[in-house]
Amino acid sequence: MQLLKEKILNEGVALSDTVLKVDHFLNHQIDPELMAEIGQAFKERFEGKNITRILTLESSGIAPSVMAGLSLGVPVVFARKRKSLTLDENLLTAEVYSYTKQETNTIAVADKFINESDVVLIIDDFLANGEAANALADIVHLAGAEVAGIGIVIEKSFQSGPQKLKDRGYHVESLARIASLSNGEINFLSEVNA
Amino acid sequence: MQLLKEKILNEGVALSDTVLKVDHFLNHQIDPELMAEIGQAFKERFEGKNITRILTLESSGIAPSVMAGLSLGVPVVFARKRKSLTLDENLLTAEVYSYTKQETNTIAVADKFINESDVVLIIDDFLANGEAANALADIVHLAGAEVAGIGIVIEKSFQSGPQKLKDRGYHVESLARIASLSNGEINFLSEVNA
Repeated sequence: MQLLKEKILNEGVALSDTVLKVDHFLNHQIDPELMAEIGQAFKERFEGKNITRILTLESSGIAPSVMAGLSLGVPVVFARKRKSLTLDENLLTAEVYSYTKQETNTIAVADKFINESDVVLIIDDFLANGEAANALADIVHLAGAEVAGIGIVIEKSFQSGPQKLKDRGYHVESLARIASLSNGEINFLSEVNA
Repeated sequence: MQLLKEKILNEGVALSDTVLKVDHFLNHQIDPELMAEIGQAFKERFEGKNITRILTLESSGIAPSVMAGLSLGVPVVFARKRKSLTLDENLLTAEVYSYTKQETNTIAVADKFINESDVVLIIDDFLANGEAANALADIVHLAGAEVAGIGIVIEKSFQSGPQKLKDRGYHVESLARIASLSNGEINFLSEVNA
């Protein structure tokens, strides 16, 4: 997705060989027009799969997911990282380790929002080691529903996540695929649609 | 906003005299089309105010804010409730007590995302005791920027927040205003635009 790659090159910062900071447009400040384009791009990559629901994780997955939900005409559910007093019902839960935050979180979804007839598109802002996407897929399976695919805004292709998800048989579509972040330089995979 | 009020009546649940659960369309599952209408409604209520940025709070404020940002053509910044390893710069912070979760959180925004020339629209999903909106306004003032107004999706008009915010001189626009939640019944304020 060309617009996204330009944004990453112009406003992203390679903080280290593994950390890409995109807080100007994705995970602290959000560019709504870019999100609308991202939503449309996910629609183009997954339409025809009869998706009935989108599942994402708070907080940075919400903006691209809501725009994808608008494009695809389906509701969005976001998994929560902590329980709240008004989220007291039957929950589907999974464990996810965050390398960035160096902690394990239990993520949870009320079971009434995913059922056996659902065909679920999982969306997340980043794919690094695949922990979050795997946990979201676990929740879909716990509900007895089908994973239609996994849509990622920015994939760090040099980390273990992409292969892990493919090994589990998932259809992964990443809108920008980063080959390396060495020496402060952001390099994309040189392939069509990368 | 009629569509929102119908959603609240049809899918909201009055859990107690003070707690309204709207997890079917706003703060766990999200209805993207409703969010788009909410974004448009905020635009109609605040256009002409020369808004340059929207400030909200993760997680439930993000969806309506991104749609409002798309309608108004401005970026959205969401305050974080916890620091992450990649959010390590100069921060503007404020304290906010959550009655729902019975805890005090420090919310934070990187100072580079709000500056003195900004005219900021604050958006949040609920207005109850005004804690979150007040804290977001504090952050805008810390940045030396101007609060253009406060846009609320659902106002619990019987709690202290609406009056507190008006006493501080803010222009508050709430898309649905709830008069009471007694005996499991949801009653709206009977006024124009309520």
